[in-house]
Amino acid sequence: MSTWLLPENIADVLPSEARKIEELRRRLLDRFRSYGYELVMPPMLEYIESLLTGGGRDLDLRTFKLVDQLSGRTLGMRADITPQVSRIDAHLLNRQGVTRLCYAGNVLHTRPRGLHATREQIQIGAEIYGHAGLEADLEIQQLMLDSLHLSGLNKVRLDLCHSGVLRALLELEPAAAALGESLYAALAAKDVPRLNELTAKLGDVTRDALRALPSLYGDASVLEDARARLPNLPAISRALDDLAFLAHQANGAELMIDLADLRGYAYHSGVMFSAYVDGVPNAVARGGRYDDVGLAYGRARPATGFSLDLREVARISPIDARGSAVLAPWNHDEPLRAAVAQLRDAGEVVIQALPGHDHDLDEFAFDRVLVERDGKWVVEARS
Amino acid sequence: MSTWLLPENIADVLPSEARKIEELRRRLLDRFRSYGYELVMPPMLEYIESLLTGGGRDLDLRTFKLVDQLSGRTLGMRADITPQVSRIDAHLLNRQGVTRLCYAGNVLHTRPRGLHATREQIQIGAEIYGHAGLEADLEIQQLMLDSLHLSGLNKVRLDLCHSGVLRALLELEPAAAALGESLYAALAAKDVPRLNELTAKLGDVTRDALRALPSLYGDASVLEDARARLPNLPAISRALDDLAFLAHQANGAELMIDLADLRGYAYHSGVMFSAYVDGVPNAVARGGRYDDVGLAYGRARPATGFSLDLREVARISPIDARGSAVLAPWNHDEPLRAAVAQLRDAGEVVIQALPGHDHDLDEFAFDRVLVERDGKWVVEARS
Repeated sequence: MSTWLLPENIADVLPSEARKIEELRRRLLDRFRSYGYELVMPPMLEYIESLLTGGGRDLDLRTFKLVDQLSGRTLGMRADITPQVSRIDAHLLNRQGVTRLCYAGNVLHTRPRGLHATREQIQIGAEIYGHAGLEADLEIQQLMLDSLHLSGLNKVRLDLCHSGVLRALLELEPAAAALGESLYAALAAKDVPRLNELTAKLGDVTRDALRALPSLYGDASVLEDARARLPNLPAISRALDDLAFLAHQANGAELMIDLADLRGYAYHSGVMFSAYVDGVPNAVARGGRYDDVGLAYGRARPATGFSLDLREVARISPIDARGSAVLAPWNHDEPLRAAVAQLRDAGEVVIQALPGHDHDLDEFAFDRVLVERDGKWVVEARS
Repeated sequence: MSTWLLPENIADVLPSEARKIEELRRRLLDRFRSYGYELVMPPMLEYIESLLTGGGRDLDLRTFKLVDQLSGRTLGMRADITPQVSRIDAHLLNRQGVTRLCYAGNVLHTRPRGLHATREQIQIGAEIYGHAGLEADLEIQQLMLDSLHLSGLNKVRLDLCHSGVLRALLELEPAAAALGESLYAALAAKDVPRLNELTAKLGDVTRDALRALPSLYGDASVLEDARARLPNLPAISRALDDLAFLAHQANGAELMIDLADLRGYAYHSGVMFSAYVDGVPNAVARGGRYDDVGLAYGRARPATGFSLDLREVARISPIDARGSAVLAPWNHDEPLRAAVAQLRDAGEVVIQALPGHDHDLDEFAFDRVLVERDGKWVVEARS
């Protein structure tokens, strides 16, 4: 067994990719900060009960478990940072008003989402707590689109959904409510035969409405279709009004309504966002409202937020994070030392060639050299 | 059991501390970059064989173990990033010349180093591979002192040691070599009675030299004492010459020589650095030469580097990372939106008060407000 072999779906991030991730990380955290989001850093490890609270079976299966030598109890390595941030809002900060929090950190998954997917993501995201109105969802939508734009992704498609539609339909009859999980799975997979089978014995109104959902997909005009084809219930009207409000402020993204895009439905309690870019099958950023999550930590607060995987976004981002560098000699000359220090303080990368290594520096993009001319150290273009 | 309780010696990092850590993280990574250090991001998890290679029993005990569902093998959560970076240099980059690498990431320990120590550190550091000369050690020493200076720590004491002194003394006689581990432990603990006991049966020269080490502590003049009191061996002379070279370039730090400060001795193969600040008992940054570590990954390369815990340095750093913010109202007014966007693009923090929450914003240090005057949105001091 080679000591340099890494586990499957785990990889080192080498310099060119790491530089890009770091650049995007800073751009996004700076943008979050410019909106007033405060940075928090929850721990990598928590007691499993705390980490999985309200997260469901999927999160449980994705979470690495290990034993704490200090307490003998089971710890989990976080597979998602969002519940940790809810815990901080609910218990630790315990503010009454609006709280905006953001984070960036590694998460680990026991199994990859796909054959080539990584098991170690860098999750970055932003959450607003304490405001139930759509203004908070709009701010999150805008921040998510801003974040993709800052990552150089200019052709973005924004899919909107609303968990209130399915919830209202399931409440129409107990037989529908009993099918909840299965219906959700069939809708998420857009499995129409399965959906037809599941809904066969439901009442006409419920059945027709559920069967309509997969086809309620398209531009904002879908919302008018939906009003015509779904039952005229207050909860459904409100959900469609919410989507119409957000659909008109999509900031240059292509806007799609998809009333069956219910991934994460169990967790969400309102509008749900997914952002897609060309050539990438899965959403590159996701978000939405999840008002009930904090309850598990003793305080239910309105909450809405979004997150994305920085490694995935860096992979597809066209930004160029490489910089140029100045090559300098190495000696004890004080003016040389001062010249190097001054260039570095001004933000330049200055690499001093260590003695005997003048000729093995070809890994770097040196475009300039520091040379002595008439007793002064000056930067010149590399010949 | 409360769901918000965290494991012992594990804590959330809340906004004011997180902001400071982020600020220091950027300053240090930018400084590393200005010297030509390339950022790498090794994974949180590796196979245990790979992670513990050459790390010794202490690293093994500090490393959390867990089972990989994909391979059935044991994984370790990294407790130190340095060996991972050596692996990347030795195997993945596989360059012939000088390679400068840096990193910043979380490490976890099964047990805290002390009662109140955290089990989750943010290790940041820089390493040079491929140059055996002292110029590389000097660059690392300078970068370590620069890093502390950038963290606002201006009164720093730099302790220098050299693993070559003890190594040369142990080679004087087999009986001394056999006592290696115990002698090292007694010296590291400055346990003079134990040292006397251990050395009682050694030859005069070896015994006197080993017993002299704990008192060879003080400013650079100690090096002259050492030349007088230690045997005149080539390896010892070279080690003392190396220390003299570095001692004269301590860049404003108080310089101390401590020939018994052998923490990490097993791992090091040359000069060793420790930086101390007033009021903190343990070193805030450590480094040194460790030429043999890459061998475990198939390629021994000269190597020297340093690292520090960003959480600890942020805790003691006097820098103030808080910024001011502009408070703005929330509405659909297009000029307002444009004014807010412009301020944010210029680097300002602008927080829009969500409807109904005008009065619960006292957590922020708003010093200015965005108000409408004669149809224009302008920033004014907060009254």
